[in-house]
Amino acid sequence: MGNTIIEKIIKKNTKAEAVAPGQIVTVNVDRVMIHDIFIPFVAEKFEEMGFTKLWDPDKVVLIYDHLVPASAVEDIRHFKIGDAFVKKYGLKNIHRSDGICHQLMTECGYAKPGDIVFGTDSHTTTYGCVGCFSSGIGYTEMAAILGTGEMWVRVPETIKVVIDGKLPENVSSKDIILRLIGDLGADGATYKALEFSGSTVEEMSVASRMTISNMAIEAGAKAALFASDEKTAEYSEVDLSDVDWIYGDDDAQYCRTVVYKAEDLVPVVACPSQVDKIKPVSEVEGTSLDQVFIGSCTNGRLEDLKAAAEILDGKKVADYVKLIVTPASRKIYMEASKAGYLKTLAKAGAIITQPGCGLCCGRAGGILTDGEKILATNNRNFLGRMGTSKVEIYLGSPKTAAASAVAGKIVAAK
Amino acid sequence: MGNTIIEKIIKKNTKAEAVAPGQIVTVNVDRVMIHDIFIPFVAEKFEEMGFTKLWDPDKVVLIYDHLVPASAVEDIRHFKIGDAFVKKYGLKNIHRSDGICHQLMTECGYAKPGDIVFGTDSHTTTYGCVGCFSSGIGYTEMAAILGTGEMWVRVPETIKVVIDGKLPENVSSKDIILRLIGDLGADGATYKALEFSGSTVEEMSVASRMTISNMAIEAGAKAALFASDEKTAEYSEVDLSDVDWIYGDDDAQYCRTVVYKAEDLVPVVACPSQVDKIKPVSEVEGTSLDQVFIGSCTNGRLEDLKAAAEILDGKKVADYVKLIVTPASRKIYMEASKAGYLKTLAKAGAIITQPGCGLCCGRAGGILTDGEKILATNNRNFLGRMGTSKVEIYLGSPKTAAASAVAGKIVAAK
Repeated sequence: MGNTIIEKIIKKNTKAEAVAPGQIVTVNVDRVMIHDIFIPFVAEKFEEMGFTKLWDPDKVVLIYDHLVPASAVEDIRHFKIGDAFVKKYGLKNIHRSDGICHQLMTECGYAKPGDIVFGTDSHTTTYGCVGCFSSGIGYTEMAAILGTGEMWVRVPETIKVVIDGKLPENVSSKDIILRLIGDLGADGATYKALEFSGSTVEEMSVASRMTISNMAIEAGAKAALFASDEKTAEYSEVDLSDVDWIYGDDDAQYCRTVVYKAEDLVPVVACPSQVDKIKPVSEVEGTSLDQVFIGSCTNGRLEDLKAAAEILDGKKVADYVKLIVTPASRKIYMEASKAGYLKTLAKAGAIITQPGCGLCCGRAGGILTDGEKILATNNRNFLGRMGTSKVEIYLGSPKTAAASAVAGKIVAAK
Repeated sequence: MGNTIIEKIIKKNTKAEAVAPGQIVTVNVDRVMIHDIFIPFVAEKFEEMGFTKLWDPDKVVLIYDHLVPASAVEDIRHFKIGDAFVKKYGLKNIHRSDGICHQLMTECGYAKPGDIVFGTDSHTTTYGCVGCFSSGIGYTEMAAILGTGEMWVRVPETIKVVIDGKLPENVSSKDIILRLIGDLGADGATYKALEFSGSTVEEMSVASRMTISNMAIEAGAKAALFASDEKTAEYSEVDLSDVDWIYGDDDAQYCRTVVYKAEDLVPVVACPSQVDKIKPVSEVEGTSLDQVFIGSCTNGRLEDLKAAAEILDGKKVADYVKLIVTPASRKIYMEASKAGYLKTLAKAGAIITQPGCGLCCGRAGGILTDGEKILATNNRNFLGRMGTSKVEIYLGSPKTAAASAVAGKIVAAK
């Protein structure tokens, strides 16, 4: 019997002879990512477990993103502990203010096609955009990997998602993943892998695929994989001409198949306060907004800033609405500055912050209060995530966000 | 007997026939500025005083800068109250995310040469850079002006500061004002006006003069005036060919005269934690740093970002040091983006934040903790201003800041 992509990737990283859904196997880990929020806990567990050295300092990446620059005195403890850990154990890959962990992991080539990568963050599924099996784990598991280089995995079943055709102009990959989460439900893919295929995803940039793999966890998915292609090879700077794990086999077993026709898709939003409460923008059109946020590891990439800049060029953000734009990484920030997007966005009235997690994790830079409404491009609209529990968070695409910032209310881009 | 500049400006704005130091006169106010921190208190007092309309809505400027974007739920109350005040009383000049109040007041032409302007912030002295008598007042006084358009003033004595010659390459106007504050002491100019003249200030850009007038309050000065010239006229877009208040009279009375030779000046810093604890950089050279901040209404202008970019071009911020750069206004941000400074700074490792008061007022974006040291270009190194009371804050010029960020310790620029 054939294998899905994730089964093939697991197979090449384990001693187990065959790999089938439900089986528990031990895999070798290619790379791990720890971010600033969890480093104190990982460091403590690592020593508590009796480890005295890292299994491979080259394979560990430490990224400060949620708390940079510090907005509270307590934040700094995380950097101090992180820096001490770096010095003590000889970590080589550390980013202190270069952007969001999930962006950096693929952008800097830490997560490559065919790799197995774990991170102390639920959105670690992101690296599936380059055909990498990546998933979020807790800090105890991370400490164990740091010492051993291994991790147990229950081989997940795979849901096949096929999207064929050409997307309407105002529909982007964010609308696809929101629609899918709505259709599957927030627990519809729990511990399953998603495998995306079809002409629509083939046409997509790696950045657009990243939006989809990033949010797969919102349906509970363990991983979200795209078949690697020329774009992946170019983006990840790898030669994929001689590998056999890029596609699922014809006789691979999928537990479910979901099919979309791109032409039928419309701009959608996730309504407060569940990520699977998906409605077409047309159903909530006219909902007044206090703030709009374009950024995060879901949608803070160059193509997202470009899409927003094109819509906002020569226009103004509505009075009484704050538009906050946060590029996902330093590299994207520099590219957006060079391309003139930052200037266009600033001219339209945007507040452009430093790259990082920023408002998405609700620590600073645009906190909201009771009764306020925000449309945001990030991945979660959970209660209290961006201020008080009486803030209403809608999630949508950068195009929907930019058009809505101008209108001062939720509207679809044209 | 002749008059100083400030006496002449007061004279043209009052019914009093003669104006001499010590006299209390009522002046007509040309413009007022209220920022987000004080608008709730001003609004409350205004209604408590029984006013039902503004003396002149055109002359009132409301600027959100200290709390934008909100880093705490409580911040938002200030915007809500401000927005309600705008709607109720028909304010026309409101800036919700355009930058720091003191930058905007001259940049947008609200404070013009010869004007009298009051603001609810101590650094309102800034507008003296364009020959405007401007000073900080409390919220009760501001409420009274909003209702009447008038304000009492005790005519200040004037200290004349003369600086002649050409500044060394690594010395800027920040070093001049720091040196002056050190020489006068933090209370050395209390309720006095400073009047700057000499070939060095004549050669200076309006932006450099602004750094000096901004910090005049740190010596206690009521105002800090520069004679208007062609640069002023161009910057403020005014015709100054037919006015008689630009210069002090030859027989004007000055309570003190301070003279500097530009060639003798050196890069200096204000040491923790008094703004008048001035030392040459050479005396504290090598002091290790955790963070560097380039920004604020003192030194967040285009020429400051340019100076920093030139020093940081092709270099890297030292490991373990965070360099935070905050342009003073949206316009400066756009100009810096267009000129490539933002890209250069980002490439060197800077964290570039949105324009605003940011770290200077210690609300977010780079808070420090016990034992950490920062070199910053803003105007105050008071205890606890950027984190805990055990943070050590050094104040210096953008050139010193940029060179120190690369070195990871305090050094003078070359």
